[in-house]
Amino acid sequence: MSKVGIASYGITKFSMEDSKIESVLLESTKKLFDDTPNLSRKDIDAVLVSTNNNSKYLSAILSEMSGIEPKIAHSIESLCNSGTNSIVSAYSYIASGLADVVLVSGAERYDSTGQILEWDNSRGEFKHPIFWASIFTKAYKREFSITDEQLALVSAKNHKQSQHNPYALSKKVYSLKEIINSKKLTDDLRLLDCSRPCTGGASILLASEDSCKKFTDNPIWITGIGQKTMSAGFTKNMAFSSMESTQYAALSALKMSKHSVMDVNVAEVHDAFAVCEPMALESIGFTDKGKGMDMIKELHTTNNFKINPRGGLIGAGHPLGATGIAQTIEITQQLQSNAEKRQVENAKIGLVHNMSAAATSSTVLVLER
Amino acid sequence: MSKVGIASYGITKFSMEDSKIESVLLESTKKLFDDTPNLSRKDIDAVLVSTNNNSKYLSAILSEMSGIEPKIAHSIESLCNSGTNSIVSAYSYIASGLADVVLVSGAERYDSTGQILEWDNSRGEFKHPIFWASIFTKAYKREFSITDEQLALVSAKNHKQSQHNPYALSKKVYSLKEIINSKKLTDDLRLLDCSRPCTGGASILLASEDSCKKFTDNPIWITGIGQKTMSAGFTKNMAFSSMESTQYAALSALKMSKHSVMDVNVAEVHDAFAVCEPMALESIGFTDKGKGMDMIKELHTTNNFKINPRGGLIGAGHPLGATGIAQTIEITQQLQSNAEKRQVENAKIGLVHNMSAAATSSTVLVLER
Repeated sequence: MSKVGIASYGITKFSMEDSKIESVLLESTKKLFDDTPNLSRKDIDAVLVSTNNNSKYLSAILSEMSGIEPKIAHSIESLCNSGTNSIVSAYSYIASGLADVVLVSGAERYDSTGQILEWDNSRGEFKHPIFWASIFTKAYKREFSITDEQLALVSAKNHKQSQHNPYALSKKVYSLKEIINSKKLTDDLRLLDCSRPCTGGASILLASEDSCKKFTDNPIWITGIGQKTMSAGFTKNMAFSSMESTQYAALSALKMSKHSVMDVNVAEVHDAFAVCEPMALESIGFTDKGKGMDMIKELHTTNNFKINPRGGLIGAGHPLGATGIAQTIEITQQLQSNAEKRQVENAKIGLVHNMSAAATSSTVLVLER
Repeated sequence: MSKVGIASYGITKFSMEDSKIESVLLESTKKLFDDTPNLSRKDIDAVLVSTNNNSKYLSAILSEMSGIEPKIAHSIESLCNSGTNSIVSAYSYIASGLADVVLVSGAERYDSTGQILEWDNSRGEFKHPIFWASIFTKAYKREFSITDEQLALVSAKNHKQSQHNPYALSKKVYSLKEIINSKKLTDDLRLLDCSRPCTGGASILLASEDSCKKFTDNPIWITGIGQKTMSAGFTKNMAFSSMESTQYAALSALKMSKHSVMDVNVAEVHDAFAVCEPMALESIGFTDKGKGMDMIKELHTTNNFKINPRGGLIGAGHPLGATGIAQTIEITQQLQSNAEKRQVENAKIGLVHNMSAAATSSTVLVLER
């Protein structure tokens, strides 16, 4: 079976612009083509669109706008975890031999319908993700004796890091005091503890080993894949202070890649809300239960960009269907030593963690240069 | 690489009922489980939902309702062609080794948003599929000197056949005169020339060769896959009297299966409107250009159920995301000799043709027992 690699990518600035979803898809796709001189429209066997947008037939629309006539074309949706679901689908098309080169394009608008969990009647009025995030925050603080002031460090670190991400929604640096004093949204969450939905697009080109080498002399390989869906409603099967689906996905991905988590040099983790970052670090296995904030403090103090170098969802913004792809692009750039001021030195093995709705489902990818 | 087979299926009655999309998904999934005693919830690695419904996270919801905790879970949309896109995705997950057993569940409500082509601004006011179907009908009649009376035979044949389909929306038989005299919708189309959107669900279980044999002693193998997207807007790249994407998909699928179209004993073709059936038969290669109606007349006269034995979309109804799966179930039943009064004798090789929006994209599958 062929190795599957990342041959190219394109990304838009994340913003609050009122752009049409088709334009957002096209913009990152065009950048990908502009950056890949050896790539012809005819090389592309499949076009997969990752989005929560209600528009139909977007993969055919993007194909027509881009001059591609693919074999396989459809949209993929799994809330915030759509991006890496699409990348894994692309991987399977290539590994199975049904496709050789696959374009995956994710896009979302700031007003995405994926933000409100209309489907979960068990939530009553509490359909906005902020409510599960509040419960997680309360549970995590109680279980591990963590304070609001300590958790504010996640946002401080990620906003500091997003300064150096040219595509980030936010370029501002915030002090712990500013974060703590930002608008209180619930008992446990302030505005600056949250990622912000925004308009943004990210495209990535996956290809078989031989084709990859035609398009880049710096391919990055997908060597580990892990995915798990525990439930849809977050009150089922869930410990509120750890992420079971993430644990499972990380174990599977690392096993497939034949690496230990200690081999990972750089990682993107899904910090939709501040508390998600320490929880994800613990669930992936970077540190022990309850020790996530210690790790984050150490990284912040030493100016180490190992976790969420592009600023995470909190700093970079969260265009749902594009997020998993943007995370994968960041790790690709890190492993290619193309991450400029965000570069983690000598990064050889990277990890991407993308999830949906209170970590009811997670995807973990391991990438290697 | 493992062979990929169809191990089981479940289907709902197609109706005009105002059911919730989650209930429709669950109903056919439950039937599949009820019919597969050796299948445990834990066997299922992936849950793919095929739909045009705007609800998000339906694969996680269906998983939770069904007691499945899959690795891979997402929704797939490509308008009317979503069902076979999902089956091909399931195939690729199994063939690539990322999954061993995949549940594909398609569902739609009678009021699906996939019916109105809101996205195609080039259509002006003419966003309902009936407008492309009118143009196709006019072009086909003109090019091959076919009359409305001749085309009415498609609906007469398919309604006759759907009488014997326990899940069909329509069980009525119509005379040519009744069809011709049914409500005129456009210059070239009457009500009974059209398939009707409806509420319906269809689920199918795909598995690797070894697993398939655990769940059934009558597995059906997917031996050919062909897909093509030409465009999104139907005025581009299109001859209005043939289906280019179908031609391409059929050639690819037959080549992969190492069969000629003449080896095919039974087929489901996508008769969203009457004219689509002769056009599809010609584009797949069952007969020469302009000769589709001759073939249909011969089949109708001799009571031969070879084409659209379950009554096609016109007789069975068209719940968009479920259609491609329902078509695949019909061919599976035919090859298993389980099609009762619809049975085509000695059917060994079957073909499924599913398409979207004026045949701007098509999927063709070859199945074998």
